[in-house]
Amino acid sequence: MIELYAFATPNSVKVPVLLEELGAPYEFHQVNVRAGEQKTPEHLARNPNGKVPVIVDRDGPGGEPLTVVESGAIMVYLAEKFGRFIPADPVARVRCFEWLMFQAAGLGPMFGQSGYFLKLAPEKVPAAIDRFHAEAKRNMRVLDGRLAEAEWLAGDEYSIADMATFGWIWRRAFAEVDFSEAPNVERWFGAMEARPAIGRAIAAIGG
Amino acid sequence: MIELYAFATPNSVKVPVLLEELGAPYEFHQVNVRAGEQKTPEHLARNPNGKVPVIVDRDGPGGEPLTVVESGAIMVYLAEKFGRFIPADPVARVRCFEWLMFQAAGLGPMFGQSGYFLKLAPEKVPAAIDRFHAEAKRNMRVLDGRLAEAEWLAGDEYSIADMATFGWIWRRAFAEVDFSEAPNVERWFGAMEARPAIGRAIAAIGG
Ligand SMILES: N[C@@H](CCC(=O)N[C@@H](CS)C(=O)NCC(=O)O)C(=O)O
Ligand SMILES: N[C@@H](CCC(=O)N[C@@H](CS)C(=O)NCC(=O)O)C(=O)O
Repeated sequence: MIELYAFATPNSVKVPVLLEELGAPYEFHQVNVRAGEQKTPEHLARNPNGKVPVIVDRDGPGGEPLTVVESGAIMVYLAEKFGRFIPADPVARVRCFEWLMFQAAGLGPMFGQSGYFLKLAPEKVPAAIDRFHAEAKRNMRVLDGRLAEAEWLAGDEYSIADMATFGWIWRRAFAEVDFSEAPNVERWFGAMEARPAIGRAIAAIGG
Repeated sequence: MIELYAFATPNSVKVPVLLEELGAPYEFHQVNVRAGEQKTPEHLARNPNGKVPVIVDRDGPGGEPLTVVESGAIMVYLAEKFGRFIPADPVARVRCFEWLMFQAAGLGPMFGQSGYFLKLAPEKVPAAIDRFHAEAKRNMRVLDGRLAEAEWLAGDEYSIADMATFGWIWRRAFAEVDFSEAPNVERWFGAMEARPAIGRAIAAIGG
């Protein structure tokens, strides 16, 4: 059994998406980040970085419970544990890690800052809005370029790179990014949304 | 032979650090990001995201050349190719991926934005400076907490998580972050700087 500590956020949703695709049983524990629950001593004991998602695998290596933080690391851990959704072909494996990293290091942070300065910042800061909104849209175009040449991010096979990227494309309105310059992302997103596992994951975290 | 396209930057330096630790032969090709060379058609053909580092492994899977982008993906590819610096122990392996992801998704982007708004932005934007400088310092404290409990980021073993994190700690002055609240990071950084492979890597990229 996997305990999932999460909220209906772009980084959280990846994990139930993967768990549902794997058919792995899990228990959802809501950590309300709007109420600051990610900074309680209880949650900081799970993740000193004070963020969601976090999992606790009660049946970790050696049968011991194992806590895993950072959504990208959680994806790799679960995919390896179940032996699915990381391609076996060596080139596709490299592409899978490239797009997993692109999401974690580029698209995710840029969408997040774009949304913050557009929607949440107490003060309107045009220089920051311009910078991050432009970067978010540029990252979307880079993603679109990949999906113009391949069905899935790793190539022919659906993988954790797609599942990791789904969250921010699902929440793209927060960053004020749309599909107008990204028809291939739109096609890919439609194919993902149609997957029953994804519908179940969104319902499970109350998204 | 590995071709390395890079500059003396925090994300670039990780790759020669790993190549030097592996004793793997490589050829350095400078891409001057200060002169915009990362946005030339030639470099965009290597990496549509227009960034460094990039490697081309002339002896990739099946003996074919393989281009790899995203420093985190490059680290995983090379560590797996040579079978070193990713721990075999399953718990240490998870910790290695967690800190690799923390660097890629958190510490790296926050140090980068802190430095940008403090040092490069054409306009002083106090709200952005405050946000990113505080986040950079908070990320440094989270890193320090890990290095208070473990010698290396993955645990007992030096790994690609340490090498990936080295770059931004080496360039911490850009983000205006120091060791005053991070004595354990200071100890770890000293141990890394003392490694001959790291000295050679920095010299190789002209840092
Ligand atoms: N790199 C982390 C980022 C996690 C993250 O930013 N989580 C957000 C929700 S999407 C969060 O917990 N925000 C609340 C906070 O930072 O206080 C990961 O991928 O797990
Ligand atoms: N997530 C990427 C980030 C790479 C990155 O930001 N590279 C910087 C140098 S450290 C760069 O190329 N900057 C120039 C630009 O973005 O135009 C990675 O880790 O490879």
